[in-house]
Amino acid sequence: MNGAQSLIRTLVNAGVDVCFANPGTSEMHFVAALDSVSASSAGGHGANASSAGGHGGPEMRGVLALFEGVVTGAADGYARVAGRPAATLLHLGPGLGNGLANLHNARRAHTPIVNVVGDHATYHKKYDAPLESDIEAISSSLKGWIRRSGSSVDVGADAAFAVAASQEAGGQVATLILPADVSWGDGGVAVKPVPPKAPQQVADTTVKAVAEVLRTGEPVALLIGGPACREAGLLAVSRVASATGAKPFVETFPARLERGAGLPSVERLGYLAEQVTYQLTGFKHLVVAGTKSPVSFFAYPGKPGDLVPEGAQVHTLAEPGQDVVAALAALADEVAPDVEPVLQQAQRPALPSGPLTAQNWVEVIGALLPEGAIISDEANTSGVLLPAATAGAPRHDVLTLTGGAIGQGLPVATGAAIAAPDRPVIALQADGSALYTISALWTMARENLNVTTVLLNNRAYAILRMELQRVGATTSGPKANELLDLSRPDMDFVKIAEGMGVPASRATTAEELADQFSRALAEPGPHLIDALVPPLM
Amino acid sequence: MNGAQSLIRTLVNAGVDVCFANPGTSEMHFVAALDSVSASSAGGHGANASSAGGHGGPEMRGVLALFEGVVTGAADGYARVAGRPAATLLHLGPGLGNGLANLHNARRAHTPIVNVVGDHATYHKKYDAPLESDIEAISSSLKGWIRRSGSSVDVGADAAFAVAASQEAGGQVATLILPADVSWGDGGVAVKPVPPKAPQQVADTTVKAVAEVLRTGEPVALLIGGPACREAGLLAVSRVASATGAKPFVETFPARLERGAGLPSVERLGYLAEQVTYQLTGFKHLVVAGTKSPVSFFAYPGKPGDLVPEGAQVHTLAEPGQDVVAALAALADEVAPDVEPVLQQAQRPALPSGPLTAQNWVEVIGALLPEGAIISDEANTSGVLLPAATAGAPRHDVLTLTGGAIGQGLPVATGAAIAAPDRPVIALQADGSALYTISALWTMARENLNVTTVLLNNRAYAILRMELQRVGATTSGPKANELLDLSRPDMDFVKIAEGMGVPASRATTAEELADQFSRALAEPGPHLIDALVPPLM
Repeated sequence: MNGAQSLIRTLVNAGVDVCFANPGTSEMHFVAALDSVSASSAGGHGANASSAGGHGGPEMRGVLALFEGVVTGAADGYARVAGRPAATLLHLGPGLGNGLANLHNARRAHTPIVNVVGDHATYHKKYDAPLESDIEAISSSLKGWIRRSGSSVDVGADAAFAVAASQEAGGQVATLILPADVSWGDGGVAVKPVPPKAPQQVADTTVKAVAEVLRTGEPVALLIGGPACREAGLLAVSRVASATGAKPFVETFPARLERGAGLPSVERLGYLAEQVTYQLTGFKHLVVAGTKSPVSFFAYPGKPGDLVPEGAQVHTLAEPGQDVVAALAALADEVAPDVEPVLQQAQRPALPSGPLTAQNWVEVIGALLPEGAIISDEANTSGVLLPAATAGAPRHDVLTLTGGAIGQGLPVATGAAIAAPDRPVIALQADGSALYTISALWTMARENLNVTTVLLNNRAYAILRMELQRVGATTSGPKANELLDLSRPDMDFVKIAEGMGVPASRATTAEELADQFSRALAEPGPHLIDALVPPLM
Repeated sequence: MNGAQSLIRTLVNAGVDVCFANPGTSEMHFVAALDSVSASSAGGHGANASSAGGHGGPEMRGVLALFEGVVTGAADGYARVAGRPAATLLHLGPGLGNGLANLHNARRAHTPIVNVVGDHATYHKKYDAPLESDIEAISSSLKGWIRRSGSSVDVGADAAFAVAASQEAGGQVATLILPADVSWGDGGVAVKPVPPKAPQQVADTTVKAVAEVLRTGEPVALLIGGPACREAGLLAVSRVASATGAKPFVETFPARLERGAGLPSVERLGYLAEQVTYQLTGFKHLVVAGTKSPVSFFAYPGKPGDLVPEGAQVHTLAEPGQDVVAALAALADEVAPDVEPVLQQAQRPALPSGPLTAQNWVEVIGALLPEGAIISDEANTSGVLLPAATAGAPRHDVLTLTGGAIGQGLPVATGAAIAAPDRPVIALQADGSALYTISALWTMARENLNVTTVLLNNRAYAILRMELQRVGATTSGPKANELLDLSRPDMDFVKIAEGMGVPASRATTAEELADQFSRALAEPGPHLIDALVPPLM
């Protein structure tokens, strides 16, 4: 078997059976190998081959995207929902560059991704052909695992290590650079999965030290992030809070937050430094678990970057990458052995009426959100009132913009829908960032994904209008305003979506949004609602 | 004045008065400064300030794009046509990543670009906020000039050096990293332009050595690239060819090729290695001027990467970055002092009729191409018959896909139209690569640019279908074919364009294309024609 075949077999053996791809010439043998690595052959070749065994057709599913930012964002969304990595397939440095922003978001989400970047054949690099590019330099910016595969014989093993690496350090981007001749050369060996290193356990002494802090009776805020934002972590932190009076918070941009009726409802830290300062005022201790202590998203003249309240002490229960859920469970057993968590009651807003506003569109979502929904949230300024409106909705997951690089929302929704075909996926997408990766709509149509996109169309970079004020740029005039304005021309997202094969409709009132949202959820396949929601401010 | 104001004044002083921008929070003071740096104030501040003087309103024009790949491609297209750099404004590492593919193309085109990348405030970087990113690592992949500005006092001088650097080494990407507090801090000083180092002159001995080769009477191919692909270089090489019998060729992907009636018509080297091998067979000498000796775009199993014919000698008249036009003129004076160039006669194909084909659509363009047109050519496989059909059309420029990173065509057309508002710009755009930077259409609409886009819609990654065969991937099957197919769903580029504010129409016959193309040229502002052209093969 050739290198590409051994690579794909090894990935499938390790449970990586979805590849989001935007291939080029140097990746053609990988593409061809998608057909030759079939369910019946996946485990049967090579001295070290292991059977993928027992879980149905284990061959690789290739999902085409028309832009690499969709590839990488979809891989991120897939893994956040599936709990295991997908592979990407990118074309040299420029393809990696196009995918870099959403890999940055994945890095900040601690998402495991096996990031396969094709390169020229080993012996071709010396010619400095037009697409020759410094893949190592670009991928080094992701601070993850990087390996350049050197031979067809080794690429299977390299892939096994890449899968393991992607799941270490709390989850990271593992970039495997794949020269074309390594793909097409013979002698490939499909290998068994390499078990990833288990996450580091938090020492008992650390748990006990935090327990002591909680027992002081002083005001304690307990900030959780990473895997702690899912059910087990939320239950534990709710027990701790109930028993000790500590106030729990979820980090500003969790990779995956489970919430809704039947789960503890935990307040998220705000995006704006001013909000966080308000939220944390008065606490003497800040316990962080699975995240870092809060800092301002950006710097602003004369304002602090470190958002820990003055005089407060920071105590780290678990660093990102440590087993934060186990640490929280141990902490709960220590300070709240017999205490039950407080669970959110089912509660929905009434369906509103009238022209769409920043307030009433979230009430529509809250009133109609289906059980088990997955929300890919890139609503930005339009979405600030969303958490309150959906707190008591049926249980759902929220995937947020972890790294602040816009253009994540539609690709992450795409990947989430591939990972969870039986769950409704809802993309809440601001207009200002929608165009970055708009061709995700085409992939949704091609794969017939059950994604309902609500496009919050306020015809402005509203967040930048706000930021222009916040950074103290008081001299702004018509030229500055022009750069923050998305009207002239207005974008017609109904046409854009239909042009990419996604049925679409326009809502200008709450009634229309409710009607279209309900119908979109009831129908299979994707739908986009161009919701004309005026700016919040 | 603050740092951002001094930066903009310095850029304007140096003739950089267009900035393509996709800003974020860390760039808000730059955005605000666009208004405060006005024509009347641009030259009047600071001890070292020089007046931009005499050429009308010298303030900076900000052009908004909705994606950074549009920003960087537009800056490339602008400079290829204007002959001087534009500035970009990008948002941290993810913004640079999004713009990287077209910066890669600009690098290969030797285009001068002043690439301004905003970053967090200097004192904020230690917090590792979500958008913290390794801008230096990413930009190092461009092998150009990089400087991180350290203070508001220095940023003016840094900008002056960036403008100079962008025009050295034959033209390059000069990346200026701009921390937010350097922008907003006081003490900025607008400085005079720094003269760029002049291009290195080619030694007389080199010219004479090449002249000797030409006098041997042996078969000589003369391959020109870079600035030699414009009028002066073409005239010189035509004289040399007439006098000596040498066969001239233009490099495969020139940044800007001047051609048409009244100019020498010089054959371009093909994209496929097989074509180049055919074109160069039998030559004993290959003289290269302003480019490198030809190599295969990609490696293919068992095929050579170096396309110099076996046994042929390579002679370098001018390296890229040297003054190739002067060297060719000197060579012509040496070997062809009294010889006139051979000029292409005016000649157009007849207007064809019938359903669109890969042959007849180029005849429509050839028959109707207006005087002074600028073609941004990303037609890929659909365009292989274009050069023959337009050889005798009125004089025009062709901007090609220099670095092979697709998604260049629409942004480069955007920038070209900003640089040359009185010339018709024609974007010939393949469907497979159109979606990478499709939001360029929105910027065309906003700026009311005179760009006519002919979208060659063959509903496939046709080039990859071909490449799948060429790399010898013989085992391809339905999964591979699925990844090279762009139908299911078909894209409707009329709707996509209209959704972004660009009037659009669909052509399925040569008559329709001719009619729509003529009307689009006659009307101001952008237009898109969705031309359903079947794949060439």
